[in-house]
Amino acid sequence: CLLSGSWRSDTGCRMVVSILSKDGRFSGSYLPGSAASDPQILTSPLEGSQQDTGLVPQPTFSFTVHWRLRARTTAFLGQCYVGTNGEETLHALWLMREAADSSAEDWKATR
Amino acid sequence: CLLSGSWRSDTGCRMVVSILSKDGRFSGSYLPGSAASDPQILTSPLEGSQQDTGLVPQPTFSFTVHWRLRARTTAFLGQCYVGTNGEETLHALWLMREAADSSAEDWKATR
Amino acid sequence: CLLSGSWRSDTGCRMVVSILSKDGRFSGSYLPGSAASDPQILTSPLEGSQQDTGLVPQPTFSFTVHWRLRARTTAFLGQCYVGTNGEETLHALWLMREAADSSAEDWKATR
Amino acid sequence: CLLSGSWRSDTGCRMVVSILSKDGRFSGSYLPGSAASDPQILTSPLEGSQQDTGLVPQPTFSFTVHWRLRARTTAFLGQCYVGTNGEETLHALWLMREAADSSAEDWKATR
Repeated sequence: CLLSGSWRSDTGCRMVVSILSKDGRFSGSYLPGSAASDPQILTSPLEGSQQDTGLVPQPTFSFTVHWRLRARTTAFLGQCYVGTNGEETLHALWLMREAADSSAEDWKATR
Repeated sequence: CLLSGSWRSDTGCRMVVSILSKDGRFSGSYLPGSAASDPQILTSPLEGSQQDTGLVPQPTFSFTVHWRLRARTTAFLGQCYVGTNGEETLHALWLMREAADSSAEDWKATR
Repeated sequence: CLLSGSWRSDTGCRMVVSILSKDGRFSGSYLPGSAASDPQILTSPLEGSQQDTGLVPQPTFSFTVHWRLRARTTAFLGQCYVGTNGEETLHALWLMREAADSSAEDWKATR
Repeated sequence: CLLSGSWRSDTGCRMVVSILSKDGRFSGSYLPGSAASDPQILTSPLEGSQQDTGLVPQPTFSFTVHWRLRARTTAFLGQCYVGTNGEETLHALWLMREAADSSAEDWKATR
């Protein structure tokens, strides 16, 4: 599974993985689907790492997006699947946190 | 908020952040609380990044644990809070994924 | 938004809401998409409730599936959206728990 | 495991299960920990169900809170554990949804 390239989610989010090093680390950029309707949303940098592809054909990966102009961080955790036709598909879940003012507000900080 | 040091969760997990670079990246090790009852569980390396502490006093952070001897990856997303007495506390949520054999099994891969 | 009827998810899960009472409670049945490949998976009963549809045109809802023959419970939390063409769509997230033997195992009980 | 009674979480939330019927359904009330600092937060009704306690000593349970005066619904999914001293403890995870205006906003509706 080569993670390098451009990916698009069902909800219109776009991810570009531009650099993938030999030890599995990668960087790139992320643009949420809601960017179309909100011009204040910018492409944000992402950094992550992929499991050793020499060991597994369908590696898991994780990456983090630190949003520009917003005190938000999103962590993605996913896996790259290879279909019978060789086509690669990504499945991922995410957690997004907005910085809370105090630990009493922490319960609602994560979506 | 200095993330460097040793942390212990309510459930007995231990995290050691040993290296914290100027750009907010850090590395260290993680040992789950269930290690006490299961000798096969080893300390695993973690890598992550913290929001710019020059901008915010209570920064968010994220880190990933690639488990040794298991096809598991865990992504943590949290925030470091400073109490009125100056004591630092971490609050974090996590997602854990075990590599699935196919995308049809993906729905149950993440806890 | 009328929740009554038959719904199918992208991943092949089928939900039938057969009874919807005036106070918003409903019952029905649920069949996961993985049933096609695993004959041991049976249709399981679901019970839930919908927000007051007199107050909101796109109500939230929640329902619980108690799986047959398995010590599993799944809680769904979603919302019924009405498109510009009047078509209704459901969006939902879920948590699934398998009974753990002790509280020390609780951390991994939920997906 | 008798769910009936009054429970308090680490974060100051209070749950009272007042009625538990023979088929496992229960109702009661829920008050979040943040109520202390925000007088607009009221006790809200909860309704749920517990697994058959005749079959399992440590049953799973689920319940839903429909918040008063807010378009919010929270679904809890948990298990009641019995310690070696006979003391009962609840462990639960939750999802909270605020009604979104459209399906394009759905991605951020759930915490």
